[in-house]
Amino acid sequence: MNAHAFPERTDKKAIEEGDLMRPKFDEHGLIPCITVDAASKDVLMFAYMNAEALRLTLTTGKATYFSRSRNKLWIKGEESGLVQKVKNVRVDCDQDVVMIEVEVTGTGCCHQGFRSCFYRRVADPENLRLEFTDERVFDPKAVYKKG
Amino acid sequence: MNAHAFPERTDKKAIEEGDLMRPKFDEHGLIPCITVDAASKDVLMFAYMNAEALRLTLTTGKATYFSRSRNKLWIKGEESGLVQKVKNVRVDCDQDVVMIEVEVTGTGCCHQGFRSCFYRRVADPENLRLEFTDERVFDPKAVYKKG
Repeated sequence: MNAHAFPERTDKKAIEEGDLMRPKFDEHGLIPCITVDAASKDVLMFAYMNAEALRLTLTTGKATYFSRSRNKLWIKGEESGLVQKVKNVRVDCDQDVVMIEVEVTGTGCCHQGFRSCFYRRVADPENLRLEFTDERVFDPKAVYKKG
Repeated sequence: MNAHAFPERTDKKAIEEGDLMRPKFDEHGLIPCITVDAASKDVLMFAYMNAEALRLTLTTGKATYFSRSRNKLWIKGEESGLVQKVKNVRVDCDQDVVMIEVEVTGTGCCHQGFRSCFYRRVADPENLRLEFTDERVFDPKAVYKKG
C-alpha cells in the first residue's frame, strides 16, 4: 500500500451511505473530477486525478490533477498562474466521481482563454452547430507561452 | 458509418475553436456527461453516453445515457419517472466531455433519494470524513421498486 492509498471499498451501503471517503479509481488509476466555481456555481472544467493528485488536492488546498496527455501530475496554475483554491471536495453517491468547488486565482481556467471550458452550446441539434456563449477573458498566448 | 455517427475530429483548431460538434468517444465508445440543474446550476449527476445516447439526448430532448453496469441505453426516468428535460447541451474545449443543463421532472436525480448525487462533502481531509450536506427528498425504495 502506498502513501496515497485511500480506504478500501467495502460494501455498497458503506460507500453510498457512509461517512468515510472511499474513492474508486478506474483501471488506469484515475477518477474523474468536475471543477465548479465556488461563487458562481459554473462548471469550469473536467479532468482526472490519480490517488496522489486527490491527496494533494485535499492536503494542499490547491487543485491538482493528473494530465493524461503529459502522463504526469498537474498542479493547476503551475505554468499559467491560474491556481484554483479548493473550498470544498465532494464525492458522488458511489464515489467514482469527485467534484471540487474552487476559487479561481486570475481570470479563468481554460487554455483557450475562457473562464470555463464549456463556452459553446449546441444551437442546432439537427446540424450539430455550436454557438459561442462566452467571451474570451484572457489571451491564452500571453498566459501559456511565457517560457 | 452508422446512423448515430458524429462528424470526424479533424484538427485541434476546428475542434476547439470551430462551430461544429465533434465529440470524442473513448476506447469503449463512451463520452463523460456532467448533468446540471438548469435553474439552480447544481451539478446533479455524472454518467456516460455512447453515440446513440448523445443523438437521442439531442433529438428527443430527454436525457439519455449509457449504463455501464447494465451495458445498455438508459433513458433517465424510464423506471423512476424522474425524467430530465434537456434545456441545453454543451461541449468542453476539446470536446471530450458533454455537459447538459436539465429541468428535473419530480424530486431528484439520485437513486439514493437525494436531488443531486453529490450530497456529501469532505469535512475532515486528514481522516477523510464525509459530512452529509443535503436532505433526502424522496424515498428511493418507493420510487425504484415499483415492479
